[in-house]
Amino acid sequence: MCAKPYRSRACSTGSNLSLAIVTPPLKIALAQINPTVGAIDANAQLIRQIMSSVGDDVDLLIFPECALPGYPAQDLLLNPRFIADTQSALQSLAAGTGPTAVIVGTVREEEGHLYNSAALLQNGAVAGYRDKTLLPTYDVFDEARYFTPASDNRPLPVDLPSGKRIVLGLHICEDMWDDRYAAQVCRQLTEAGAELLVNISASPFRDGIAQERHAIMIQKAADGNVPYLYCNLVGGQDELVFDGRSALVSPDGRVVKQAAAFDSGLLHITLPDDLAGSGQVQPPQREVDLMAAIELGIADYFGKTGHARAIIGLSGGIDSSLVAALAAAALGPAHVTGVIMPSVYNAAASAEDAAKVAGALGIEALQLPIESLRLETMQQLAPHFDGSRPGVAEENLQARLRGLLLMALANKRGALVLSTGNKTEIALGYATLYGDMAGALGPIGDLTKPDVYALARAVNERAGKPVIPDSVLTKTPSAELRENQTDPFDYDHIAPLVEQLISDPDSAQRLIAQGYDRKEITSLSKMITAAEYKRRQAALTIRVTGKAFGAGRRYPVVNAYE
Amino acid sequence: MCAKPYRSRACSTGSNLSLAIVTPPLKIALAQINPTVGAIDANAQLIRQIMSSVGDDVDLLIFPECALPGYPAQDLLLNPRFIADTQSALQSLAAGTGPTAVIVGTVREEEGHLYNSAALLQNGAVAGYRDKTLLPTYDVFDEARYFTPASDNRPLPVDLPSGKRIVLGLHICEDMWDDRYAAQVCRQLTEAGAELLVNISASPFRDGIAQERHAIMIQKAADGNVPYLYCNLVGGQDELVFDGRSALVSPDGRVVKQAAAFDSGLLHITLPDDLAGSGQVQPPQREVDLMAAIELGIADYFGKTGHARAIIGLSGGIDSSLVAALAAAALGPAHVTGVIMPSVYNAAASAEDAAKVAGALGIEALQLPIESLRLETMQQLAPHFDGSRPGVAEENLQARLRGLLLMALANKRGALVLSTGNKTEIALGYATLYGDMAGALGPIGDLTKPDVYALARAVNERAGKPVIPDSVLTKTPSAELRENQTDPFDYDHIAPLVEQLISDPDSAQRLIAQGYDRKEITSLSKMITAAEYKRRQAALTIRVTGKAFGAGRRYPVVNAYE
Repeated sequence: MCAKPYRSRACSTGSNLSLAIVTPPLKIALAQINPTVGAIDANAQLIRQIMSSVGDDVDLLIFPECALPGYPAQDLLLNPRFIADTQSALQSLAAGTGPTAVIVGTVREEEGHLYNSAALLQNGAVAGYRDKTLLPTYDVFDEARYFTPASDNRPLPVDLPSGKRIVLGLHICEDMWDDRYAAQVCRQLTEAGAELLVNISASPFRDGIAQERHAIMIQKAADGNVPYLYCNLVGGQDELVFDGRSALVSPDGRVVKQAAAFDSGLLHITLPDDLAGSGQVQPPQREVDLMAAIELGIADYFGKTGHARAIIGLSGGIDSSLVAALAAAALGPAHVTGVIMPSVYNAAASAEDAAKVAGALGIEALQLPIESLRLETMQQLAPHFDGSRPGVAEENLQARLRGLLLMALANKRGALVLSTGNKTEIALGYATLYGDMAGALGPIGDLTKPDVYALARAVNERAGKPVIPDSVLTKTPSAELRENQTDPFDYDHIAPLVEQLISDPDSAQRLIAQGYDRKEITSLSKMITAAEYKRRQAALTIRVTGKAFGAGRRYPVVNAYE
Repeated sequence: MCAKPYRSRACSTGSNLSLAIVTPPLKIALAQINPTVGAIDANAQLIRQIMSSVGDDVDLLIFPECALPGYPAQDLLLNPRFIADTQSALQSLAAGTGPTAVIVGTVREEEGHLYNSAALLQNGAVAGYRDKTLLPTYDVFDEARYFTPASDNRPLPVDLPSGKRIVLGLHICEDMWDDRYAAQVCRQLTEAGAELLVNISASPFRDGIAQERHAIMIQKAADGNVPYLYCNLVGGQDELVFDGRSALVSPDGRVVKQAAAFDSGLLHITLPDDLAGSGQVQPPQREVDLMAAIELGIADYFGKTGHARAIIGLSGGIDSSLVAALAAAALGPAHVTGVIMPSVYNAAASAEDAAKVAGALGIEALQLPIESLRLETMQQLAPHFDGSRPGVAEENLQARLRGLLLMALANKRGALVLSTGNKTEIALGYATLYGDMAGALGPIGDLTKPDVYALARAVNERAGKPVIPDSVLTKTPSAELRENQTDPFDYDHIAPLVEQLISDPDSAQRLIAQGYDRKEITSLSKMITAAEYKRRQAALTIRVTGKAFGAGRRYPVVNAYE
């Protein structure tokens, strides 16, 4: 039956499918792989292994967008040798193909133009290309910097090993997200006779993306009355985490089969048989997704840069406790070190909580009190501080001494420091540059403070025990950089406001119109703008929302707009 | 006479000019202004003042590209309120106009599309727009992220106060740099009857740009056989410095009049009279240009963010000496503090040289030895360093202690730290993150090591005395972070290689083909790639070459390409 009749259309469940799909059954594998940007040979080897493992068992084997060069390769794409190397690796892959039709995401140059392309490899050769039409150039995406849009987006006829011919509506990632564009690629493809829509993607995770993708795929499948195949990358690349979730959507609007989220693997599909499936795809669980995204982001950043060990400053607060828990899950507890660095301003309970977290996670805990260093630094600076009242200078230097000690340990051990700032703090500039902002990667830099708590609870739930103790979950947040300091924010109140101000540049006026205090909204907006210079030097932040700090949000530092 | 006959064409010197230009003479002013990004009201006020000072004395008053919102406004352009505010400021400017035709660079929204636009204001109203056709989306430019290309680039007829009508070939910045595009905007304009080509620009300085602009303008003027008017922004904005040099080019291919470089001002032009001028425009002097660009970049970063005081770690080396000299020139010596922070590894001569530089520049010099702090830090870390041999950890912590002290002084005094790394070091990662890389702005981060020496000599020449002493110019470069350390590079040999590897991604193969040692080139390439993670957290670097680190060079951190 039609579970989600997005259009008023008779249930078809494959009844209108072309003969090529119906008989004999069409066997497809979606190869949801985790390539590394720039590792052309290793990526080719990965593709070759899967080709070889699949053998002649499938008619059609599909790899994601830019599976060969990795995505996003950024300015590597401006290097003619990089393009030539990619093209030559593709030829070599093609040489190893037999009757199975293999679709591989790649890049190709023709007459001085570069295309983001899907190559069809078969019987020892490259049998054709289809290029990407819609080039996302917003948020984290810069495709107009590199690529020329497709000039040909006709469907691609493919001769199957069975002797049948199937007409593929092959398109690439953004080509299905056509809301903001004039061109409607999927409709053009099905109107021109595509029997199967095939999308290869490098679509990064963000909170809610799985549901949005489902809705689009369902709409496109129903619109064209054809099955929709979706093959997405998986893995972490700098700020981005690709979540996989390759899928088959039936023409009657059901996600009938889906690959794992945040893990590589092959999704085998038989058409039309699988279209009759129940479509019971697990709905995504928000906190589980966020945890998995961050953990994959950490694991791949370390793995792909050749690092194994993480160093984290453990304050006993919620942020560093959560980062330690996520890092322990991503890298293994034996590869994570928590460093406890109290000064005179830290409550004894803080160090105790930090030690408890380390103990519960099974990570190494080092004690490195900074009080003597703080005193020595203050003494050195005293002649130049001229008896002025203690302020931000005195507070920041404590955070910077901690950053210095963490970096020294990391340098000594070949480890990487994880910074522990959350999105709300980083937005408001409530963080010390070169201090607690120091680090190679900021795992929770795209989580609001309330989401930090939500994930901490999810971590405990997954562990089946309070690895992050109640005392950490319930204490009043504090940077503990001066006597009796607590964070000057009611996070439950301001975090959602800050999130709106970040994700929607026009939200200030709307919030005021909704009755929020103009002075408060203006003050928060000003703090966000004023902290831009800090964020320019922040660690890479793993992106898990639609608007993260980093490449997707480009504000001038010199910015007089209010 | 034809000084530079770029085309085989009879000398015309205005002989083919339209009646509107010839009689009565056409009086034009190019307003080379220095607006601030986001400061819509202040920018409007600046424009209004110039409109009012010019009064009815000119027929045509021209302001640069995006003079009203500032350039580049980046993601401020995604805020509908920012666009509305800009449009409303433009209406208000228009309301103040009389018979003088005023061209103002702005942005405008129409039917959901945003345009980078030139508005014609006259007789109290906006009389028309011409939008930018070619939207640069490479290097530091992201215009495809924001703007839609012009759909109409016909010439714009303007009724002059004299009653005559002149047909303007109005176009915007990139529209004249059409080498890489299919559209040839200037030719379209002149073929459609433009009597005068008018380009409003926000064209940032880079070494050699003045000569390139001259060549293009000469070509366009000659090609259309019309005078070419060029009105460029001036001022610093984050990494970019706009150099002005607004100009008039005659149809016979001579730059007959040019406004100052790196300074705001009005360039008055009378046509056709000025076309008969000698065209003796001062050729740019490389080191003078580089100094001026960096000094304007410093001055505007401080001025536009509301800071006055700079703090610089003075090592006695060439890099920090040059930064101190440039900062003293940009901000005034009374606003610059040099901090001398020796450890046991610093030669006595280094501190003496640093003090000499401070004395010669007339800047404050503070002494803040770090030896006791270094010892205390080493003692704290000893239990965790396990008797391992001293290495990068021990070296980096010295640089980080210095960074910490500089930041503490800056925090206490409301000053900004200037980082002192040069491009060659930053390329190779020979710099300490959170140490000597700490700072709000990196004035010489786009200067190769040899250019640092060249500018130091130019500074001395300008001063008429050795403000940077010979001993600094001649000593062997050293980070002085361990016993008898000197920099492990022959900078004269490697700096040009590194510069090529940065500016041309394909140069590695070419250099090897030219006979350079494959091992050396490969090693340098790997160092450049491996240091990407540091550069992501580097201070903003003032861009003075065609390929600077920062927004114009976007490489993945996780990058396995070799």
